[in-house]
Amino acid sequence: MFHPLRVLLAAFILLTVTPANAGMDKDAKGTGLYGDEWRPDAVHEYWDPEAYHKSETDLVEGRFTGEECIECHEGITPGIVKDWRQSRHSSPTSGEPVTCNACHGDDHQKLRFPSPADCGSCHENQHTEFQEEKRYGFPGHTLAMERAVDAKHFVDKPKAEVTACLQCHSVASKCDSCHTRHRFNAAEARRPEACLTCHSGPPHPDDETYFASAHGQKYLAEGADWDWSKPLTKGNYPAPTCAYCHMTGGKHQVADKAIWKFGIREVNPKTAENEVKRKRWIAVCTDCHEEGESREWLEEPDDERKRAWTQLYKAEDELKSLRSDDHIYPAAGERPPYPTDWLDSVLPFERIGFYEGQASAFYNVSEIERDYFEMWYFNNLAAYKGMAHGAEKITSEAHVRLNQDLEKIRRKAAELRELSRKEIESGSNVDPKPLWLHGPYSDINREQN
Amino acid sequence: MFHPLRVLLAAFILLTVTPANAGMDKDAKGTGLYGDEWRPDAVHEYWDPEAYHKSETDLVEGRFTGEECIECHEGITPGIVKDWRQSRHSSPTSGEPVTCNACHGDDHQKLRFPSPADCGSCHENQHTEFQEEKRYGFPGHTLAMERAVDAKHFVDKPKAEVTACLQCHSVASKCDSCHTRHRFNAAEARRPEACLTCHSGPPHPDDETYFASAHGQKYLAEGADWDWSKPLTKGNYPAPTCAYCHMTGGKHQVADKAIWKFGIREVNPKTAENEVKRKRWIAVCTDCHEEGESREWLEEPDDERKRAWTQLYKAEDELKSLRSDDHIYPAAGERPPYPTDWLDSVLPFERIGFYEGQASAFYNVSEIERDYFEMWYFNNLAAYKGMAHGAEKITSEAHVRLNQDLEKIRRKAAELRELSRKEIESGSNVDPKPLWLHGPYSDINREQN
Amino acid sequence: MFHPLRVLLAAFILLTVTPANAGMDKDAKGTGLYGDEWRPDAVHEYWDPEAYHKSETDLVEGRFTGEECIECHEGITPGIVKDWRQSRHSSPTSGEPVTCNACHGDDHQKLRFPSPADCGSCHENQHTEFQEEKRYGFPGHTLAMERAVDAKHFVDKPKAEVTACLQCHSVASKCDSCHTRHRFNAAEARRPEACLTCHSGPPHPDDETYFASAHGQKYLAEGADWDWSKPLTKGNYPAPTCAYCHMTGGKHQVADKAIWKFGIREVNPKTAENEVKRKRWIAVCTDCHEEGESREWLEEPDDERKRAWTQLYKAEDELKSLRSDDHIYPAAGERPPYPTDWLDSVLPFERIGFYEGQASAFYNVSEIERDYFEMWYFNNLAAYKGMAHGAEKITSEAHVRLNQDLEKIRRKAAELRELSRKEIESGSNVDPKPLWLHGPYSDINREQN
Repeated sequence: MFHPLRVLLAAFILLTVTPANAGMDKDAKGTGLYGDEWRPDAVHEYWDPEAYHKSETDLVEGRFTGEECIECHEGITPGIVKDWRQSRHSSPTSGEPVTCNACHGDDHQKLRFPSPADCGSCHENQHTEFQEEKRYGFPGHTLAMERAVDAKHFVDKPKAEVTACLQCHSVASKCDSCHTRHRFNAAEARRPEACLTCHSGPPHPDDETYFASAHGQKYLAEGADWDWSKPLTKGNYPAPTCAYCHMTGGKHQVADKAIWKFGIREVNPKTAENEVKRKRWIAVCTDCHEEGESREWLEEPDDERKRAWTQLYKAEDELKSLRSDDHIYPAAGERPPYPTDWLDSVLPFERIGFYEGQASAFYNVSEIERDYFEMWYFNNLAAYKGMAHGAEKITSEAHVRLNQDLEKIRRKAAELRELSRKEIESGSNVDPKPLWLHGPYSDINREQN
Repeated sequence: MFHPLRVLLAAFILLTVTPANAGMDKDAKGTGLYGDEWRPDAVHEYWDPEAYHKSETDLVEGRFTGEECIECHEGITPGIVKDWRQSRHSSPTSGEPVTCNACHGDDHQKLRFPSPADCGSCHENQHTEFQEEKRYGFPGHTLAMERAVDAKHFVDKPKAEVTACLQCHSVASKCDSCHTRHRFNAAEARRPEACLTCHSGPPHPDDETYFASAHGQKYLAEGADWDWSKPLTKGNYPAPTCAYCHMTGGKHQVADKAIWKFGIREVNPKTAENEVKRKRWIAVCTDCHEEGESREWLEEPDDERKRAWTQLYKAEDELKSLRSDDHIYPAAGERPPYPTDWLDSVLPFERIGFYEGQASAFYNVSEIERDYFEMWYFNNLAAYKGMAHGAEKITSEAHVRLNQDLEKIRRKAAELRELSRKEIESGSNVDPKPLWLHGPYSDINREQN
Repeated sequence: MFHPLRVLLAAFILLTVTPANAGMDKDAKGTGLYGDEWRPDAVHEYWDPEAYHKSETDLVEGRFTGEECIECHEGITPGIVKDWRQSRHSSPTSGEPVTCNACHGDDHQKLRFPSPADCGSCHENQHTEFQEEKRYGFPGHTLAMERAVDAKHFVDKPKAEVTACLQCHSVASKCDSCHTRHRFNAAEARRPEACLTCHSGPPHPDDETYFASAHGQKYLAEGADWDWSKPLTKGNYPAPTCAYCHMTGGKHQVADKAIWKFGIREVNPKTAENEVKRKRWIAVCTDCHEEGESREWLEEPDDERKRAWTQLYKAEDELKSLRSDDHIYPAAGERPPYPTDWLDSVLPFERIGFYEGQASAFYNVSEIERDYFEMWYFNNLAAYKGMAHGAEKITSEAHVRLNQDLEKIRRKAAELRELSRKEIESGSNVDPKPLWLHGPYSDINREQN
């Protein structure tokens, strides 16, 4: 949903502001609930053009036809003209070519970066499907940007560290995350690299797990020779890619089969809803494998998740018990509240694990809480992704790490209890364990944001 | 091409049948010495079909010719039919095509998954060569399955963690680990990906070390353009792949040049037997390099291994000394015995390093023993693999980690001794260090297996 | 095609000769200031042929024309002959073919390995450009060998660990690090793999960061289909490679745009010199992107570096404060001096961070100093490289690690102070913290070098 006021404001800016090339609104503030707490960098206009791009005065004046654009830019920026020439836009199966001005406008003083809505004016189905992902909730592509930027932990950290997040999360606000401009080739988006540019590393090692699977290795060995112009349907590909399974038939959303929710929380994998999703999975798997095999394979993540959560809950219990015995520093009242979090400053509390608040586990927590965060968000998710993508080797390694995390948390918990025992014995006050990142952290960051 | 009647039949089957033509023997027990201690998952039938696959009642009845199989499956599973059409099986240089029923049987009620012996009935040389690897002992492909499954540590761990091992170790019981069904292309198996699907990550970073070498980078840059239909012999490839060096000329076993034994134990690299193996290596290297260079390069791992074992023995000595002073908990008599290990329950002992029992070092050990295990099994093997595959950079990094491991073990040993000193001084009993994974571990696992 | 007489000759040679045509000067000593402290391995002759290669008596006698070389070697080493046949050397656009003897000499008793100067005798521009990199200082290719070998830390470490360094640092003394012999293809060197064979892993994860960027992913997906015979200029490539940006137009040196100096030390990114370099960057970026965007992007590393150095300086301060309070063991006078370092043995001092001496931070330091080294050299450089190569995800991960490093250093510093406090309180002497690697380290190493 677009905030109507923001749309109006954007429209107003686009219509009234003076000229052209690319530019950042120098007075721009951050968007959303926490927008007052930070100011966008210049690069933000590329991550979220609709919110931050502002046409700047440009030395080239006038309105141009597509042919005129191309004639000049053939010399100035030949690469993008070459890309366009190879695109469907330049030689559509029907109708006129879609030239530069169709997306960027024809007035060189008011050029714009196209938004998903612009693309959607022709590619309606794809745009609608993509937007529909919203109803499956987070994690999801359409919510990626607002959840990343308009979030407590975004303003709670030095910008140099969180700006990085936007490079990928901008998938919500621009189509060329997957379809590289200006060729916009469906064939490109069918290849795993289109997805893996973002989907790699913790907490979502999709790159690592896909390429460690037999599917991925087959792609690596022979993918260069496959015919990528074919649609993502049965019999067209010797092995699946990200899009083949998650965007079957080219459908532009990936959440309609999400049973295990990224591994991020425990789910009952056998609810009625999940049985429907399971059937959707089986329908994809049986493009190549038999039904019995597919069904049996899909029970492997069910089992693996059970084991992972057994270990995660043990760690959570340890932390909860520490907290109730007042062995975690800082205690609720001693932690710097999140900026702008009125409730948090009045009624602060430690948060442990997903249910008590995901964002809280990133920063401004005690060391042992950060350990839990990494156990849950990095090693647990790696275990799940390995299983989901057929790279059980990675699952097995991740479970070893989960076991080690649990031991580490238990060891540290024992140390904290021992420390407290000594304090009582000696009557003296041992220095409390510091925050993982020393406070007053938020103040420092606010300066830098 | 399609007989209309058959199309109708296919349509009828598709509309009425719930396919269930693979099945798991629901009463199956694990195989081997420890088989009573665990029960196979449904997916086991794919890892070891001969042991666990059982034909299930199928709604499709009758016996079919290969042509009939293909006609139906062209619609149901077009991908595998397409694979088969591109295979040598469909158009052999002499004789009749090898169709579905040759490997799966012709009775749809009794379909089978082919075993290596089935493949060997035609591909006799390859099957015999592969089986011969057995006489070179473990590690090796032919023993991979029984050593992984029929092992103390397999039953000692939660199944969700060890099932993963079978995905790769199943190479012993099925040929399509390397030759993807149903194309079974020799060209595929010549490419490194065929091997690296399994050979990556600790303790065998063959993927990481090959691709970090000049050989691997040349493959990455240009391999897509090489002619993979050519045999693995002198002059056919601009750079070697796994199979080029380890399965020279296409010979189906890889152990006949194994001098350094994977880095897993110290070897005398200059025994008469190893000199023979060294000559075999030089014969391969001189396909591209000169003899002097090859010989000199092969001495690099000799030196590197010496240094690695210098550090490993220092760590072992530390542990042995701790043990003899009774500073390792649990001591011999206090450790939960391996399940089914009669000898271990009567005469328990700590095991340090390879010679005292590899399996023991995985689980149910004290933290410092686990540290040694990771030093030996992960960082030591990475050091070796880097050297063996021409990625000395990785060797150098791994040696830094070996040094750090040794320091960590020394530091913890000092702490354990200090702890003990304090106990004696104070007369009190400090809580002993717990197992790396808390017991009674085996009991928990037995429930889950 | 084969003259029967020559075939006979070749057969005769193969039957009677024990080839030994490469050789190491067995009496060779190391080169440079520290050369007396170590002896080269046999493989050194390949890393630095001019310094260490020595022609050995060879059973093949006589002087040969290029045609004669090729006729024999077609049978003995067909791969390299095939490579040569595909090279520009075998069919130059003008003049006679450049055959074996042009580079190796024609006397089989005095064969040589060609040096960069040999290549430069024809490829003068490239050689001169490459040598010019020297004036930009270290890090740089031309100084890579002497700085790596002729260095305190080279003789201070077991050779098995440092020999590895030479595999890549030999880029200074041979051209086939990038242009694989004997094809010497410019097209090969244009691809990223030519660089990434060396540029991967800590402290220079160029491989990891390039391939995690949109540029790298585009190459991975489609690079196999690009026309690599084209020069590295505007419009020829859909995405850039290492060489495209760092060796624009094929210029043979990479240092003329080095603003941030590898991330290794703090720089003022806005000096007059750096503004010139920045303009050079913008000139490259605008081959594909618009100027405003390019300029804005280049400010991202400016900001990121500021944040990284904020954290690094906090860690340095912690160490300096520890040192001034005499809490670092060994103190200045207690550390084993570097071999051959006269000044260090008379006036020893701890070194912290880059400005106080990079080499010193590798080995023979206390644990907390080693922690700082890894913070600075591994995680800091990864943060920079991620930003420089458009893989901000890696930057973000690296900053988390930088934060954790700082916490670890602070924690350890607190422990060292606490330890000291207890000493004073109790009047007793607690055992000092050992060196990261126990001394007398240098003595052990001198034996092994």
